Amino acid sequence: MKVNSNFDSLVPNYLFADVARKTNEFAAAHPEQEIIKLGIGDVTLPLAPIVVAFMKKGCDDLRNKETFKGYPEYEGYDFVREAISGYYKRFGVTVQPDEIFVSDGAKSDCGNLPDIFSTDNTVLVTDPVYPVYVDANLMAGRKIVYASSNKENNFLAIPDEKVSADIIYLCSPNNPTGAAYSAEQLKVWVDYALKNDAVIIYDAAYEAFITDDSPRSIFSVEGARECAIELCSLSKTAGFTGTRCGYTVIPKELKRDGHSLHALWYRRQATKFNGVSWPVQCAAAAVFSDEGLLQIRDNLNYYRRNAKLISSALDELGIYYTGGKNSPYIWLECPNGMGSWEFFDHLLQNAAVVGTPGEGFGENGKGYFRLTSFGSYEKTAEAVERIKKLLS
Amino acid sequence: MKVNSNFDSLVPNYLFADVARKTNEFAAAHPEQEIIKLGIGDVTLPLAPIVVAFMKKGCDDLRNKETFKGYPEYEGYDFVREAISGYYKRFGVTVQPDEIFVSDGAKSDCGNLPDIFSTDNTVLVTDPVYPVYVDANLMAGRKIVYASSNKENNFLAIPDEKVSADIIYLCSPNNPTGAAYSAEQLKVWVDYALKNDAVIIYDAAYEAFITDDSPRSIFSVEGARECAIELCSLSKTAGFTGTRCGYTVIPKELKRDGHSLHALWYRRQATKFNGVSWPVQCAAAAVFSDEGLLQIRDNLNYYRRNAKLISSALDELGIYYTGGKNSPYIWLECPNGMGSWEFFDHLLQNAAVVGTPGEGFGENGKGYFRLTSFGSYEKTAEAVERIKKLLS
Repeated sequence: MKVNSNFDSLVPNYLFADVARKTNEFAAAHPEQEIIKLGIGDVTLPLAPIVVAFMKKGCDDLRNKETFKGYPEYEGYDFVREAISGYYKRFGVTVQPDEIFVSDGAKSDCGNLPDIFSTDNTVLVTDPVYPVYVDANLMAGRKIVYASSNKENNFLAIPDEKVSADIIYLCSPNNPTGAAYSAEQLKVWVDYALKNDAVIIYDAAYEAFITDDSPRSIFSVEGARECAIELCSLSKTAGFTGTRCGYTVIPKELKRDGHSLHALWYRRQATKFNGVSWPVQCAAAAVFSDEGLLQIRDNLNYYRRNAKLISSALDELGIYYTGGKNSPYIWLECPNGMGSWEFFDHLLQNAAVVGTPGEGFGENGKGYFRLTSFGSYEKTAEAVERIKKLLS
Repeated sequence: MKVNSNFDSLVPNYLFADVARKTNEFAAAHPEQEIIKLGIGDVTLPLAPIVVAFMKKGCDDLRNKETFKGYPEYEGYDFVREAISGYYKRFGVTVQPDEIFVSDGAKSDCGNLPDIFSTDNTVLVTDPVYPVYVDANLMAGRKIVYASSNKENNFLAIPDEKVSADIIYLCSPNNPTGAAYSAEQLKVWVDYALKNDAVIIYDAAYEAFITDDSPRSIFSVEGARECAIELCSLSKTAGFTGTRCGYTVIPKELKRDGHSLHALWYRRQATKFNGVSWPVQCAAAAVFSDEGLLQIRDNLNYYRRNAKLISSALDELGIYYTGGKNSPYIWLECPNGMGSWEFFDHLLQNAAVVGTPGEGFGENGKGYFRLTSFGSYEKTAEAVERIKKLLS
């Protein structure tokens, strides 16, 4: 009996544990100070009323023999897939309902999707990176190569023609940097993928935050249907982090190595997944109704207002940053050449504000720092005042 | 770019599709006949009132900022794990809350658990078998060996000392045969696993149906904590097939190849899973309350009464079968030496009753047939009368 030795190559990630420990130590030493946490990557506003109403109706369905629901379809109920297809249509993208797989979240899908690919494939990720893309593939023994996101390219990595890769993870708007690709930039990646016979796994979890003409979906880019799988999530779109629902789109025409990737993923899900809870699917469909979209907009605008507060302050201070506009994340260059953890300590000790050191997301995060807009307006405003006072 | 070529070794399983097709053809040809389906492997009775009440309370929690829940713990909320630990205690088994991982279902876990083991390991399954154990491991390229369940051992396979294996799947009470191991028989498997340095993945999804002194958990057997992982599910226990919740127990002391399997699974889940929906976890905890356990007993007894109807008829007819007592499944030898599909056609054409041909579950299912007790009492009684009339 051997365990999977690839787990030995995983680097323990103590980022959030270290943040919590330092924060708790400061709180213990300074009980009189109110600490404001702008490091949080989780939503804080409640679900929209219509979403909860439909979720509760789903619960009631399970209470009666006539409306009871047993095993769901592995790929999600048709009415949910149709609602998601309709959502895509609103921003001009055609995705057929039967190309959509409803799941318990984009994290599960971005971790499990590599199951359908050979372990000999090389995986390209951008640096800084959402750690799941790396760890899920290291677990399977795949080789990882990095594309550099940095100040020169505004933290929007571009492909290096000299590097070949088979599986490419892109996240736009990006976690952690908040930077969003333009259609032209995404087209460069699509062309690179097509040339390399590669597949892009496109994480659109933050698409609902886009306010300019950046693509909401990679499928708005020509050629993407021949090289891309798109993941999305209701976590940030509609506050579903604790409700758990996401979706993955695999175009029917997407083939590699003589196989339909849609068919492979269906087989994977049919074998190792059993569908999403009925009340959660009812709630998900409600998100994409006319009324649902109106209601979730209020929450998105609330977070956007916070992001604007933070980014305006950084503009005033003359600090370089990405994100904030199309994203709940603001990724800033630590002032005065400070390191990530150095700036973390500086901000905590002198302003009682907590953020996330960028180096937790990769080499290129060194000297950078992530703030988020998921706090309350009042606390975010107060934190911004303290930051301005400290750094002016 | 290569896809995972192991998918090519998967045999398409058309069992239920073929059953549906033949049933539909019969229905079209005989619109006057009422077809009764005893092939169904899904529950039909609604959730218990207290379960729905707590699930709806969970929905309401998500409606308010003060009670809102974001990302759950990967391993489940403590109050759910404590409720499950308390459930084990009721049948005399000690499982600590922090040994329990709450998940979206036992199927996901039995498919994903192999992630923590080397692909070089040999997997032992019994034949007939729940196909997920086989397919999930074929997908990863593992070698499969079979232990024969047959009439001679009452469809309770015993280990062959000449065969070595690293990962052993056992399901008791069994799907599809309904047969349940005694404590003595399970001890033989535990001893075999310990001798082989193997790990047993014990699927206890049907444990709530046990009425005699068969073990409800493998952890009631001495030595099991050094060699076994247990999966369980609320699907059959409490009608959660459409609600989606299960749990997996990995003892803290269980080590292989120098690694804690609990730690490896935690890392796997933290990377590729993001926890179970808040309302579903509220519902799950309610199942294991005093009132919840009383309420789910009504449904279990309803299915048991159906099982008794079927097994009593087979007793009268002198037909050999397993299950029915500790299980919602009755696994019978097709009369007069008929093959599985031959008997399927015979029953459909002459009694308008639908069951499941045993050969869909493996070689040893040839000549066998599965009936289930998940239908209504009235229809089950009518089907039993037709079967008795046909086979007397």
